[in-house]
Amino acid sequence: MRIGILGTGVVGQTLGTGLVKLGHEVKLGSRTATNENASKWVRSNGPNASQGTFADAASFGEIVFNCTSGEVSLAALRSAGAENLAGKPLVDVANPLDFSKGMPPTLTVCNTDSLAEQIQAAFPDAKVVKTLNTMNAAVMVTSSIVPGEHDVFISGNDADAKARVTQLLHAFGWKHVVDLGDITTARGTEMLLPIWLRLWGAFKTPQINFHIAH
Amino acid sequence: MRIGILGTGVVGQTLGTGLVKLGHEVKLGSRTATNENASKWVRSNGPNASQGTFADAASFGEIVFNCTSGEVSLAALRSAGAENLAGKPLVDVANPLDFSKGMPPTLTVCNTDSLAEQIQAAFPDAKVVKTLNTMNAAVMVTSSIVPGEHDVFISGNDADAKARVTQLLHAFGWKHVVDLGDITTARGTEMLLPIWLRLWGAFKTPQINFHIAH
Repeated sequence: MRIGILGTGVVGQTLGTGLVKLGHEVKLGSRTATNENASKWVRSNGPNASQGTFADAASFGEIVFNCTSGEVSLAALRSAGAENLAGKPLVDVANPLDFSKGMPPTLTVCNTDSLAEQIQAAFPDAKVVKTLNTMNAAVMVTSSIVPGEHDVFISGNDADAKARVTQLLHAFGWKHVVDLGDITTARGTEMLLPIWLRLWGAFKTPQINFHIAH
Repeated sequence: MRIGILGTGVVGQTLGTGLVKLGHEVKLGSRTATNENASKWVRSNGPNASQGTFADAASFGEIVFNCTSGEVSLAALRSAGAENLAGKPLVDVANPLDFSKGMPPTLTVCNTDSLAEQIQAAFPDAKVVKTLNTMNAAVMVTSSIVPGEHDVFISGNDADAKARVTQLLHAFGWKHVVDLGDITTARGTEMLLPIWLRLWGAFKTPQINFHIAH
């Protein structure tokens, strides 16, 4: 499958490499077509890896991942172009973290709204699916690096888009994909970030994850 | 031990019964000394169960539990009296849920503050310990009703108070007590409520709980 990834940081690169390893063609998108992070990533990920602008990556992908920082996600998506996102699953992995007031970060939006809902409202023709935002990048693509049973959450309004993204999650090794419901349930997963950051401190490793015992 | 419980709802009654079963003397406190919920609870819980006002329960307890609704917790604690809480572990089980805008509820405070921090600020001589607020009341006192490994979180500024409360948690069957740090980490556990409410819907039972795989 052709997959566009917006964002060339650790999350975008790690997901990109994971998707290339699964046999997909991946284009990493950035503000510029010649972003240096993306160029290095392309050189080390073989012929199925490419780079371009946000719009290049979005138009390339049958599925598009938003791996930009939450504070710039809406701007990056506008740059990607609504027409390049329309009708496609838009996998929102970002969190609306605000580092401007020091550590630990707070959220720029929460409780009565979420970044995922803001994205869905701004791009009504995209099929926003919130997932993978509750864990470290390395865990996203290789769930088995955290021992024992643990879960990934999924939120979105479009059942077919959630089913297609769930297939990718299974390919990354995720056995438990917990469907929370429509995109408003992304408030709950984005609001996991404050405790996740404290758990990182308590367990002294980011290789942790949530499991729902039931 | 003598334990005071503020609040006569399901959480207060369930914790009260659990503590009586462990051999503790428990006084349930309410706005009035003759609260009907508390009277029924006293009749069915034997000689170690008693009732009174918020102030009666707080002065009675060597440890005091806040099991009131989050929106009235500060008022209930003022009624209990700062002098009756001073120097004692004050176990805050409440969540700042706002049901006024319909279901699911939102939080009245979050992100940059928490109910637990507001209580600690209002009662600086109490040793506020936030715990047990991330699960159903039945699970609080009998962790084994949820299968598998799962955890209870604890937050607070006073190490000795956290240690005393941790002993009670072990007595309720909790094997994994995750110490998140000081009282500001209660933001993280209070912000679990939005996803917890959605998980209740997804799993169709409130007998669920969080586990941190690591």
